[in-house]
Amino acid sequence: MAENVPAGAPVTACLLIIGNEILSGRTQDKNLAFIGQGLNDLGIRLMEVRVIPDIEAVIVDTLNDVRRRFDYVFTTGGIGPTHDDITADCVAKAFGLPLIVNPEARAILEAHYEPGQLTEARLRMARTPEGATLIENPVSKAPGFQVGNVFVMAGIPNIMQAMFASLKHGLVGGQPLRSRTLRVEMGESFVADGLARLQERFPAIEIGSYPYTRNGAFGTRLVLRATDEALLDAAGVELESLVADLGAASAWEATPAGG
Amino acid sequence: MAENVPAGAPVTACLLIIGNEILSGRTQDKNLAFIGQGLNDLGIRLMEVRVIPDIEAVIVDTLNDVRRRFDYVFTTGGIGPTHDDITADCVAKAFGLPLIVNPEARAILEAHYEPGQLTEARLRMARTPEGATLIENPVSKAPGFQVGNVFVMAGIPNIMQAMFASLKHGLVGGQPLRSRTLRVEMGESFVADGLARLQERFPAIEIGSYPYTRNGAFGTRLVLRATDEALLDAAGVELESLVADLGAASAWEATPAGG
Repeated sequence: MAENVPAGAPVTACLLIIGNEILSGRTQDKNLAFIGQGLNDLGIRLMEVRVIPDIEAVIVDTLNDVRRRFDYVFTTGGIGPTHDDITADCVAKAFGLPLIVNPEARAILEAHYEPGQLTEARLRMARTPEGATLIENPVSKAPGFQVGNVFVMAGIPNIMQAMFASLKHGLVGGQPLRSRTLRVEMGESFVADGLARLQERFPAIEIGSYPYTRNGAFGTRLVLRATDEALLDAAGVELESLVADLGAASAWEATPAGG
Repeated sequence: MAENVPAGAPVTACLLIIGNEILSGRTQDKNLAFIGQGLNDLGIRLMEVRVIPDIEAVIVDTLNDVRRRFDYVFTTGGIGPTHDDITADCVAKAFGLPLIVNPEARAILEAHYEPGQLTEARLRMARTPEGATLIENPVSKAPGFQVGNVFVMAGIPNIMQAMFASLKHGLVGGQPLRSRTLRVEMGESFVADGLARLQERFPAIEIGSYPYTRNGAFGTRLVLRATDEALLDAAGVELESLVADLGAASAWEATPAGG
């Protein structure tokens, strides 16, 4: 748990994306990037993502592996009303807790549906492991939940985003990673040697090189990431001069949050 | 390896997406869905995806875990010319093989660049574990490679897709999973009970329910997946009548390959 992390150690997280439809390529995941950025803003580093199928044994084993190795675990998918929504069952099994119809969740659904409309299928969405804390869902009411360091969210992006907004105030992070991005109009192989030397001089900075092509021309985004703004500024000056010496046009880019 | 799979057992695959930029949310992955669909067309099921950072120990340990558990492992990312491209080094370590400048890869790069332009940084892209088989890259020449059941590809989508086209003829798959998709104009909770009964009657079919909203109205895509077309047709008839009995409008959708 985050509370036990020594001062200065990065706070870590793992995301489990649960669903056959992601693995088959039918559905393009849109949650990873949002969660990665959102966690980084809180000073929590997303260290691993696993996409796994709707198979109970796989979900239970994966949960038990990653909840011990990371400070926080987030899951998306598998908490709807249909037979293939088995995430709540799996979290209960992983923690060795009984699966119950959560009274608070039931009350939320009863208030939401017309009298008589809370069918058995819909009541599935009130099931949580015993003792779970609910995560509010302002979009469609059926809540997510938290057990220990595991946060269970919906897979539908706008609902997941609303749940993440509900839960994030309870997370304890460290220092957010800041970044600077220099877009350079040359292929990355030209700048590779200088970049390796810069990395040696600034071991506390994570230096990334991300090539792109635009209208057939090669370009590279050079990204500096660290928690220390002054260090980033110092490395940024050197990076700019390194690129200028190579005769390439470059420009600093606005960096998206978490980038 | 696929050759040792008992007849009828599904052929399985794992994808490792390597790169800090995916975990931070800076870059949206576009390779998972393409590979999931491409493998399914070959009768190979993508069973797990892991997104991991550019950290040698993590990459080596993950490779050694998944290459033993799945018939095929595919990796994307980390084979460019810069210091943060460490995938070749990690694959060599995982297999306990020396990392060499591959003579065939070197010849490809020498033929591609003008004399004197094959810099040390670019020569990094010719490094493979000893004994690796190259994967052709018709886009930008620097090849991917295969060692055992591990296929190492670039992260840039158009290059990855070209490499996948080069390597796929060498993969041995089973029966492709076929699917039928019925789009229903009602929330999934209405159809949930009938769907659970249908699933009980057709245990060999994977039945998925994927809600969506359009113009504020709830709808659901009901997906049947199996290798047996006749079985899918039979279940399709029952699904259509189940939905009609509920009074909902529905329509069969063209299904993307692999969906």
